[in-house]
Amino acid sequence: MDKKHVNLLVFSGDYDKALAALILANGARELGMSVTMFFAFWGLMLLRDPEKMSLEDKSIYEKMFAAVTPKGPDQLPLSRMNMSGLGKYMLVEMMEDSSTPQLADFLQGARKKGVTFYACKLSLEVMGLNPEELLPEVKVIDVKEYLQDAVNAHLELFI
Amino acid sequence: MDKKHVNLLVFSGDYDKALAALILANGARELGMSVTMFFAFWGLMLLRDPEKMSLEDKSIYEKMFAAVTPKGPDQLPLSRMNMSGLGKYMLVEMMEDSSTPQLADFLQGARKKGVTFYACKLSLEVMGLNPEELLPEVKVIDVKEYLQDAVNAHLELFI
Amino acid sequence: MDKKHVNLLVFSGDYDKALAALILANGARELGMSVTMFFAFWGLMLLRDPEKMSLEDKSIYEKMFAAVTPKGPDQLPLSRMNMSGLGKYMLVEMMEDSSTPQLADFLQGARKKGVTFYACKLSLEVMGLNPEELLPEVKVIDVKEYLQDAVNAHLELFI
Repeated sequence: MDKKHVNLLVFSGDYDKALAALILANGARELGMSVTMFFAFWGLMLLRDPEKMSLEDKSIYEKMFAAVTPKGPDQLPLSRMNMSGLGKYMLVEMMEDSSTPQLADFLQGARKKGVTFYACKLSLEVMGLNPEELLPEVKVIDVKEYLQDAVNAHLELFI
Repeated sequence: MDKKHVNLLVFSGDYDKALAALILANGARELGMSVTMFFAFWGLMLLRDPEKMSLEDKSIYEKMFAAVTPKGPDQLPLSRMNMSGLGKYMLVEMMEDSSTPQLADFLQGARKKGVTFYACKLSLEVMGLNPEELLPEVKVIDVKEYLQDAVNAHLELFI
Repeated sequence: MDKKHVNLLVFSGDYDKALAALILANGARELGMSVTMFFAFWGLMLLRDPEKMSLEDKSIYEKMFAAVTPKGPDQLPLSRMNMSGLGKYMLVEMMEDSSTPQLADFLQGARKKGVTFYACKLSLEVMGLNPEELLPEVKVIDVKEYLQDAVNAHLELFI
């Protein structure tokens, strides 16, 4: 009857925060809620398709940025305790030990379950990313389109 | 009449962010609002009972994790300016000078005022924490139970 | 008819997160929504007027804090990849290349467009900041006033 809608603004490019966002998105879809995820700034790193890197049409800063930032889910660092990757290695091992799916699995799950993926237009421009470098189903929208979706949602989080 | 409900997802294990979450929770209860706090990932560190550490049934990674992560409210670091504890020392001194209660006081206040404490089931499993290592009134729920509470709240924040 | 209200709690003192908050605030005002921004803890750094620093009536800790924390929008660091300012320099250059306004421009825009600025009373006390050190239109309120605004908003985020 009153179908619930969840709107997640994913600003962070941290492995653990992206994991939290995708676990919420998967859970909400399993409960029959509709879910939109709006990726901005560092959050865009999650949506980069590692196969589709392009250095054409990039300024020198954009090339440097593209080179030093993570490419896709597996390269995201932890928000804390990263300790040059050791903390993340431990966390991933612990997730395997407890049979928890990995970040890439939750991303695939969200794609299959019909989560709507949006990328922030302004963030793409500032970071010099092309829409073609992202996963194919990602739609580029601006902040006003995000806001109109978010004010009508039942749960909105900034992650 | 229209009783307001506040739902806080506490993902962070930082002293200052935990402080903000608990100040909001205490204030909302004083206004007669109902409050649920759902602790996930690093947020669980706040709920660890320093008296009840257990290393039994833990894998090697879980033991290392348990040893290097904070045990209870007093050990949480600042989200920034921590400077090996100096920034936090200054902040705590400044809070004392301005007669502000400390994090542990706000935690006790929230417990006495009837804030509902939830711990994320999946996070406990991944981090290898047992429910017995947490404060006694904490109830373990899964992400779907969190979502059903959150979509019906009037204020939901990811902290 | 049903005018939408947006409430942003700005806890972070990071350049990129402040930018995100102000882009959202400007966009919401352009859509005719009402917007309140409540600045707490590190978020207060954005509201500091660099012309109006005062060291009077400050304790020794408060003086140290005032000296080592950012004064106004231009001094805020990035939330990640700051690399002693290099990452921020690159980001600001990239914003200029793509003709994106800077943080200070978005702050001016929000002031002109009628965003309501609130500063957290308790945070000011703890950090030893005087209301006179902030931008003139900032109103000081307590957490309960924030909560009463937030539970009646259509979109509330913790940034």
